[in-house]
Amino acid sequence: MFVDLNCDLGESFGAYQKGNDKEILHYVTSANIACGFHAGDPSTMRETVKRALEKNAAIGAHPGLPDLIGFGRRNLDIAPQEAYDMVLYQIGALHAFVQAEGGRLKHVKPHGALYNMAARNSELAAAIAEAVYKADPNLILFGLSGSTLVKTGEKLGLHTANEVFADRTYQLDGTLTPRKHANAFITSDKQSINQILRMVKEGRVCSVQGDDAIVKADTICIHGDGPHALEFAKKIRSTLEAEGIEVRAR
Amino acid sequence: MFVDLNCDLGESFGAYQKGNDKEILHYVTSANIACGFHAGDPSTMRETVKRALEKNAAIGAHPGLPDLIGFGRRNLDIAPQEAYDMVLYQIGALHAFVQAEGGRLKHVKPHGALYNMAARNSELAAAIAEAVYKADPNLILFGLSGSTLVKTGEKLGLHTANEVFADRTYQLDGTLTPRKHANAFITSDKQSINQILRMVKEGRVCSVQGDDAIVKADTICIHGDGPHALEFAKKIRSTLEAEGIEVRAR
Amino acid sequence: MFVDLNCDLGESFGAYQKGNDKEILHYVTSANIACGFHAGDPSTMRETVKRALEKNAAIGAHPGLPDLIGFGRRNLDIAPQEAYDMVLYQIGALHAFVQAEGGRLKHVKPHGALYNMAARNSELAAAIAEAVYKADPNLILFGLSGSTLVKTGEKLGLHTANEVFADRTYQLDGTLTPRKHANAFITSDKQSINQILRMVKEGRVCSVQGDDAIVKADTICIHGDGPHALEFAKKIRSTLEAEGIEVRAR
Amino acid sequence: MFVDLNCDLGESFGAYQKGNDKEILHYVTSANIACGFHAGDPSTMRETVKRALEKNAAIGAHPGLPDLIGFGRRNLDIAPQEAYDMVLYQIGALHAFVQAEGGRLKHVKPHGALYNMAARNSELAAAIAEAVYKADPNLILFGLSGSTLVKTGEKLGLHTANEVFADRTYQLDGTLTPRKHANAFITSDKQSINQILRMVKEGRVCSVQGDDAIVKADTICIHGDGPHALEFAKKIRSTLEAEGIEVRAR
Repeated sequence: MFVDLNCDLGESFGAYQKGNDKEILHYVTSANIACGFHAGDPSTMRETVKRALEKNAAIGAHPGLPDLIGFGRRNLDIAPQEAYDMVLYQIGALHAFVQAEGGRLKHVKPHGALYNMAARNSELAAAIAEAVYKADPNLILFGLSGSTLVKTGEKLGLHTANEVFADRTYQLDGTLTPRKHANAFITSDKQSINQILRMVKEGRVCSVQGDDAIVKADTICIHGDGPHALEFAKKIRSTLEAEGIEVRAR
Repeated sequence: MFVDLNCDLGESFGAYQKGNDKEILHYVTSANIACGFHAGDPSTMRETVKRALEKNAAIGAHPGLPDLIGFGRRNLDIAPQEAYDMVLYQIGALHAFVQAEGGRLKHVKPHGALYNMAARNSELAAAIAEAVYKADPNLILFGLSGSTLVKTGEKLGLHTANEVFADRTYQLDGTLTPRKHANAFITSDKQSINQILRMVKEGRVCSVQGDDAIVKADTICIHGDGPHALEFAKKIRSTLEAEGIEVRAR
Repeated sequence: MFVDLNCDLGESFGAYQKGNDKEILHYVTSANIACGFHAGDPSTMRETVKRALEKNAAIGAHPGLPDLIGFGRRNLDIAPQEAYDMVLYQIGALHAFVQAEGGRLKHVKPHGALYNMAARNSELAAAIAEAVYKADPNLILFGLSGSTLVKTGEKLGLHTANEVFADRTYQLDGTLTPRKHANAFITSDKQSINQILRMVKEGRVCSVQGDDAIVKADTICIHGDGPHALEFAKKIRSTLEAEGIEVRAR
Repeated sequence: MFVDLNCDLGESFGAYQKGNDKEILHYVTSANIACGFHAGDPSTMRETVKRALEKNAAIGAHPGLPDLIGFGRRNLDIAPQEAYDMVLYQIGALHAFVQAEGGRLKHVKPHGALYNMAARNSELAAAIAEAVYKADPNLILFGLSGSTLVKTGEKLGLHTANEVFADRTYQLDGTLTPRKHANAFITSDKQSINQILRMVKEGRVCSVQGDDAIVKADTICIHGDGPHALEFAKKIRSTLEAEGIEVRAR
């Protein structure tokens, strides 16, 4: 039994610093690196790739919407072809740095609004999966656990990773409780960790409706930002390992 | 005896159309495709790559400065490391489209102010050559004939292509007459073509000082823009072939 | 009886040319000038303002979404506060050029997806109207005829202009037929002009359902782009004047 | 006897936070607010204007080069007309927010590389001064003490403010020691404050060559960034006041 811990990295831009990349890399096993559209820039990409390789983290591209001012978090009504093009572009750009530093690109995880739109919209999902496949059919596609994106990737023949969240509550159908709902977030570390353990070990999560939902947990999203992020990352990793669950990238 | 005809392509951006890509591809043998910094966007890159492959043009990356509003033509005081990073990023992005469409990336030609700065500045030249080498040591580096960029690329072990211009006059030392000089441009087609023929066949050009300069001509820059561009491209190609000079990419 | 003819101008960007600004200014009475977000740049803005003033066109700001690559035509899920901020910013920027050239800013017309979203979304409409009011309470707010944007502006005390389209069909409720519908566009000049004449003179338009819809026509949107644009602009202006309808800005 | 303390504010961008705007406003009397080109965005501008007005700081526009990734610190080879256009655009944008919040725009200080280029290049200086004048002839133009920019502004009839630096050493001709020189920076607070006191009270500074240079000190540049910034701002303000020098904007 094993699980992957992934974190969004390389989100600095020019003179703007963001995140605790150096520190969080002690705890996570997969690094999703921003590719210059919603965050990141060429120099940050090179440095982040190098840093991730030094820590033996699996490297993934983290392509986003071309909306730096909104950090890629605002839905943008793009055509599937545009999604394909922007994802392929960003994978290619990151791939060049990974190869130049002697590493190998392992996965792709769409960012922010692109991730959320692709979780539900099958045309966008198909376009993104196709871009990943065309870039390299051996890449692992990360998506919201059980989402349209993951299913679409599987159908295309891609390896996929179902992503779960420690700090979000789930609905009975296995989807995340929307952020606007009062009970969308889990703020207790203990509850977060218990939720993760159950998802990893049993493939189940207690939904806000009370009954269990089925949720596949291949990789856990860890936040690198915020004052509490490092402490929580450390705690979740040590708890998983104490429970005999190997923490590693696929 | 052979020579290459190259042209800057894929310079449209979103709703903005630029150039006669479709038509000029009848005449040129190498396509330098903009990579989204000074011009071009992911969708334009995909379309242009596809079009160039259909016409059997050799495909090259045409990385530029991050200055869309200035079309990459204004000098920007970047550090060598920044040049390396932005060139590697852009090569990677274009490479992804070329590979996805079943082609092979053949060369890299820096654009505009980046090209001009690298022709003289050995630190920038070294950084750019290094980025090309890291992306793929088999790539051919295009640069101004006899320039620091070409020499630096050669030293690093890259294949290089010395680029010459049909519509520009030369100084006795083999450099281009600066654009601000009254006699910088050649406007007569006949004179342009004669200059090209001599450069290709004899490796010489009559300088503005009167004596011959030594100029190596591996590839000729053809403009795709402007009302006269297509006609001139056709004329130069047919003249070269009539003179028994094969027109092809390396 | 009078009506205004307005056109989107100043949509060039850097080296990218767009539109026939110089020519279309012979026929229109209001110029909506792009402000650098979806199109336009500072130099284009200055030139376009100058040109519009020379032709005595009323000058308006044409603020758009920060989506140059999509030309501001893709819906972006912005918060009302973000809409207020980006509209006020763009009005201010254009106002500086108008004042520097000795003119007066007369109106504001949101562009593209911002225009369409504000036509239906009352929170966005209120934010945009507030930005216009704060910039200058004497500005005229242009919006889709009968839309939420126009009504919201009126409630706030702004002068408004109900905009109609010559090349689009209308629904029985006075809204435009969505672009994806087969019968969304009118391609016959004669039909276009007849529709305009009836809207201006009777405040009515024959809907696609067959019955008349009530439509207020304060200003008519004229396209400056496309091979046919100038000819049509000329025709509609001369027809209106021949029918005794004065063509002028408010 | 009085002097102004100015600080660059509003340099956050979207999700990227920068500076200690809230705290530094306790100590400075003039706020130079970024206008969206090198830093800042419409929402940050509104918030910063509001905050500065609450603290009774004089508000200035801080226009920069269109180089977000380089934070406007890299020289860009722009034409004087382009400088005029980008400065006027940015002043107008900020002005709209100041007016909407019920304040008055008081000054303009070019940022970073634009500031440095305009300190020496008389054509750029003239273009920038003209843009300020056209925006509002009552605006105060801030520039490096004794620079071409200040002199050019004065000639045009603008009020100007000669800016001095607490943490930089001076040459005998009154210019700053270039940053690359080993002795360019002053790291001792005591030395910094002594330098400022002498510049304000005597119009003199001890140059790195040993002899005094003449330097006019109308306004002192205070940094808001860095761990030490707030403490130093507090110290310099209290020292100036203890010496009987009034600290206020013009």
